[in-house]
Amino acid sequence: MTIIEAAKKAREAAICLAAVGSDEKNKALMAIAKALEENKEAIEKANAIDRVNSEKEQVALPLLKRLKFDDAKRKDVIAGIESLCNLEDPVGKVQLRTELDTELILTRVACPIGVVGIIFESRPDALVQISTLCLKSGNGVLLKGGSEAKETNRILFEIIKEASLKAGMPEGWIALMESREDVSAILKLDKYIDLLVPRGSNDFVSYIMKNTNIPVIGHADGICHTYVDKEADLDMAVKVVVDSKTQYVVVCNALETLLVHKEIAPFFLPQLKQAMDEKKVKLKGCARTREIIEVEEATEEDWQTEYLDYMLSIKVVESIKEAIDHINTYGSGHTDCIITTNEDTAQTFMMLVDSGNVFHNVSTRFSDGFRYGFGAEVGVSTSKIHARGPVGLEGLLIYKYKLVGKGHIVEDYASGDKHFTHKKL
Amino acid sequence: MTIIEAAKKAREAAICLAAVGSDEKNKALMAIAKALEENKEAIEKANAIDRVNSEKEQVALPLLKRLKFDDAKRKDVIAGIESLCNLEDPVGKVQLRTELDTELILTRVACPIGVVGIIFESRPDALVQISTLCLKSGNGVLLKGGSEAKETNRILFEIIKEASLKAGMPEGWIALMESREDVSAILKLDKYIDLLVPRGSNDFVSYIMKNTNIPVIGHADGICHTYVDKEADLDMAVKVVVDSKTQYVVVCNALETLLVHKEIAPFFLPQLKQAMDEKKVKLKGCARTREIIEVEEATEEDWQTEYLDYMLSIKVVESIKEAIDHINTYGSGHTDCIITTNEDTAQTFMMLVDSGNVFHNVSTRFSDGFRYGFGAEVGVSTSKIHARGPVGLEGLLIYKYKLVGKGHIVEDYASGDKHFTHKKL
Repeated sequence: MTIIEAAKKAREAAICLAAVGSDEKNKALMAIAKALEENKEAIEKANAIDRVNSEKEQVALPLLKRLKFDDAKRKDVIAGIESLCNLEDPVGKVQLRTELDTELILTRVACPIGVVGIIFESRPDALVQISTLCLKSGNGVLLKGGSEAKETNRILFEIIKEASLKAGMPEGWIALMESREDVSAILKLDKYIDLLVPRGSNDFVSYIMKNTNIPVIGHADGICHTYVDKEADLDMAVKVVVDSKTQYVVVCNALETLLVHKEIAPFFLPQLKQAMDEKKVKLKGCARTREIIEVEEATEEDWQTEYLDYMLSIKVVESIKEAIDHINTYGSGHTDCIITTNEDTAQTFMMLVDSGNVFHNVSTRFSDGFRYGFGAEVGVSTSKIHARGPVGLEGLLIYKYKLVGKGHIVEDYASGDKHFTHKKL
Repeated sequence: MTIIEAAKKAREAAICLAAVGSDEKNKALMAIAKALEENKEAIEKANAIDRVNSEKEQVALPLLKRLKFDDAKRKDVIAGIESLCNLEDPVGKVQLRTELDTELILTRVACPIGVVGIIFESRPDALVQISTLCLKSGNGVLLKGGSEAKETNRILFEIIKEASLKAGMPEGWIALMESREDVSAILKLDKYIDLLVPRGSNDFVSYIMKNTNIPVIGHADGICHTYVDKEADLDMAVKVVVDSKTQYVVVCNALETLLVHKEIAPFFLPQLKQAMDEKKVKLKGCARTREIIEVEEATEEDWQTEYLDYMLSIKVVESIKEAIDHINTYGSGHTDCIITTNEDTAQTFMMLVDSGNVFHNVSTRFSDGFRYGFGAEVGVSTSKIHARGPVGLEGLLIYKYKLVGKGHIVEDYASGDKHFTHKKL
């Protein structure tokens, strides 16, 4: 089957899937969870082959780590599927009901987007996670994984496909693309694919965002900031900044640049340096920072760098305004935090910082679908439309308007014979 | 000021505008309405110049029609602004509130998208309509009108700008681009513009959609269908089809292709032909249509054509399935209707037709923001994400997540010392 044939088939299947009931979808999800458990040896075997091959090909360490699909990962995705079953089915939810006139009723109803393309580097768990989210939300799905996870992806795909078809899902709702050429082919399929979800490195996601007309949900980088205000509680500031930077350094919601008000900097920075030295975090600072603590010089490039490592850039600012401007200039619109005891200052910061997640007195590491209580997560979006921040099931839905009448025509309203009532129901 | 400077300035202004209160925005809107009324002679003069020049340059008739900004148009846009003032301010609306843990509160709040780029052919009323919608929703706006409406656009822009700045809106929130080169420049400004709203012909909107990475709200074509089911009420079917086709032929929600079930075709088509002959609508039909009524042959090209004229293509279908497949293949996802007395058949049609507006027993001409009761309208969207169908104020909004705590760190949850409560508030 060519990629266009698969896409066409997914489109047809998606139209059927949109009409499948909640119980049937949940049964299919449970069948997938069961099949994943039953085939655990085969999955581990396939994953071992991928890992041996990737080590031979000297794949980068972070990729290798994410490639692992062991007992813990399998249990995680199965638990994810089970919690997905318990979520309310969002399809068919009535969002609005208006009487336009007597016996002329408008309804807005949530419905699936259509066909979702998922492109991911390593992370075979993302394949299971996002395709089950697509099933629950009634969307067809085209999967394209990296060659480093070829064997794992293939077996996971086969398990999901067989279990779901046996449970009555429409044939073709899920398809796997394997050749290297397929990525660029997928990016051109705007006629068949309604939404792309790329999961992988900054460069990888950037490339996809720049090379397609299909809408994309995701984020390329996550340059997150914390601003320590002049009215901050120093102990809290140190604790939160250390967690934001070091709790897990390779992720998009880890802290990369710290902004400190000039009035508090002389007291805060020495205390912070001590805590960061203990965690072996390398600090870089602006000229004013370096007057207070001994650190390497931070340059313009540092403000634009997502380290994803035990490194932190620091800038001393004149005012909250300078902090907000810096964040809106260099940030990714991902997650930015203020540490202050002043409520008004916090309000201003959270209003004016143009990011999907704006925090007050908490670690940036909280910005995540699971921690937000969304159950399952499509990804974190730094887009300004459709879905922003951690995206759950909702991000895979849109709506349609249904209008039901008794032969109503527009001419009667244009001529003034009839009038709209526009009554909310 | 270069276009990039204007865009940067709009971005800065938009951040301030996002924080402006409802009363101040409404005052600015009323000031704009007043200024439009006070300057009516100057506006009419400018519009007369544009119309004379356009006639000289033999601009196409539909464009010339839309160029007109007379007393009626001015009154319409002023009434529109007044009704906009009465709409609830959507900015700041709380969409979700969850306690993640004790004193750790997550809130999702509606906020403006940022900077909206409006590109339009003729239609100076669209300039007023959409820029006041942007003001109400707290978005900065970059305007680019066609050269044929240069004088009208300039004076309308000056009036809106001056009245709103005097009323305290942030400088730079609105800017007008005039040179021909600016369209392609605007399409590349994805760093500064968050959303594009193109208004104009099919080709014009298609060009914009294909040549930018900025998200676009709008529709290129509107190939709308009505399917007359075997269980249709014949008189109602004729009445609704005539209205759908002829009530106003040059618009996107006018009917272009009629699908008729084979069992009802011998009774329905002769009756329809008589009604359409009276309205001077030229009919084209498939082979089976031509066995019943004498009309010109419809070819594959007709199913793909938006006539925007007194023309209608007709196809006799075997079943509702063939009708749905035809619509999902050739339609624009705009507006499609079924005429039937059978509720179940109607439900199936409305579930499986993948369009923003799916109708039962009513004219396709109803799919419009004003008729839906949205007050003001950004446009009709055939996109599958963010906003679909007629788009009101809501389409210019997104949300941000605000998380407020007391020094909460993720490590406490990762270590198992603390647990999330995820309580809906």
